[in-house]
Amino acid sequence: MPRIVDHEERRSRLADAAATLIADAGLDAAGLRQVARAGAVTTGAVTHYFDSKEALLDAAYAAVMERLAAQQQAGPPVGELTAEALAGHVATFLPHDADSLRDWRVWLAFSARALVDPRLAAQHRAAYARITAQLAGEISDRPEARALADMLVALVDGLAIRMMLEPGDWPAARVHAVLMTVTPTCFREEER
Amino acid sequence: MPRIVDHEERRSRLADAAATLIADAGLDAAGLRQVARAGAVTTGAVTHYFDSKEALLDAAYAAVMERLAAQQQAGPPVGELTAEALAGHVATFLPHDADSLRDWRVWLAFSARALVDPRLAAQHRAAYARITAQLAGEISDRPEARALADMLVALVDGLAIRMMLEPGDWPAARVHAVLMTVTPTCFREEER
Repeated sequence: MPRIVDHEERRSRLADAAATLIADAGLDAAGLRQVARAGAVTTGAVTHYFDSKEALLDAAYAAVMERLAAQQQAGPPVGELTAEALAGHVATFLPHDADSLRDWRVWLAFSARALVDPRLAAQHRAAYARITAQLAGEISDRPEARALADMLVALVDGLAIRMMLEPGDWPAARVHAVLMTVTPTCFREEER
Repeated sequence: MPRIVDHEERRSRLADAAATLIADAGLDAAGLRQVARAGAVTTGAVTHYFDSKEALLDAAYAAVMERLAAQQQAGPPVGELTAEALAGHVATFLPHDADSLRDWRVWLAFSARALVDPRLAAQHRAAYARITAQLAGEISDRPEARALADMLVALVDGLAIRMMLEPGDWPAARVHAVLMTVTPTCFREEER
């Protein structure tokens, strides 16, 4: 019986190796050869799964955006949380351990590249539309829920950049204080 | 009498040419030769002012951060504005014309590069410390002014990225609605 290779698993392991290379040294560090070396496979094995560097980068970006969005969906619906608990929950969207820091670094590298790569910009746009719609639905069915979701998503992105570029300057208390300036506005009037 | 060359002006014109190249095509597009061509001078003239590509990029980044910070200082102290007026003022920090869009694109390219370039990260950190201290001072002398300034700065950064990568999706009304979710919290209690 031939050995069964889990193609999905191998594909995702290579996308993962690409993400780690990008997080460590930038997008130019994730060529097919470097990814092959990092994944301990031949370049031929990489090109079997990805027919170009672009396809590999697309897969790495998609995996990162999926993990960042999954973090957001991990808690209870945000509309059911108190302002304190919502601040605590939103803090988990931000870089908070080695894995999420890696994903955010990849996010920033891709966001900059998307400025000059319409295909990545389209991927970004679709991912953000999904994330924002999900968050707005959780906040409430009030018409301003979309503006609140836009605000939370933008705030998280802006904070993530600061936390990555000023790693010593953002203890949990500072992050919490910033989030507490906005989370009380995310509740229905009658609950404030 | 020898012709007097305004060295500061020429230096800043070359940094400006570099910023335009970066905004259009990314950081790798701003080599000494390309900047010389864009500035209609010889490569020797560029190296007269900047002894390396790094020095040129530093100058371009510094000029961009200075312009973005100057925009913030252009209005009245934010603590004196109504929530509506503050939302309108903060909207002018965001990409709103060709020049500010160029500067924000350069900002994003540099922010990503700063992940793997400690010198740029230090430049980023110093610029943000200045911007945030200025904004906090304008908001009020309440202790939470710093958290509010951190919040506004992060929100602006996050929104700027969305506006750049989804150029058709952010009409002024959407930006205004997002800013209005937070500007009422920037006032003293007694003024709300």
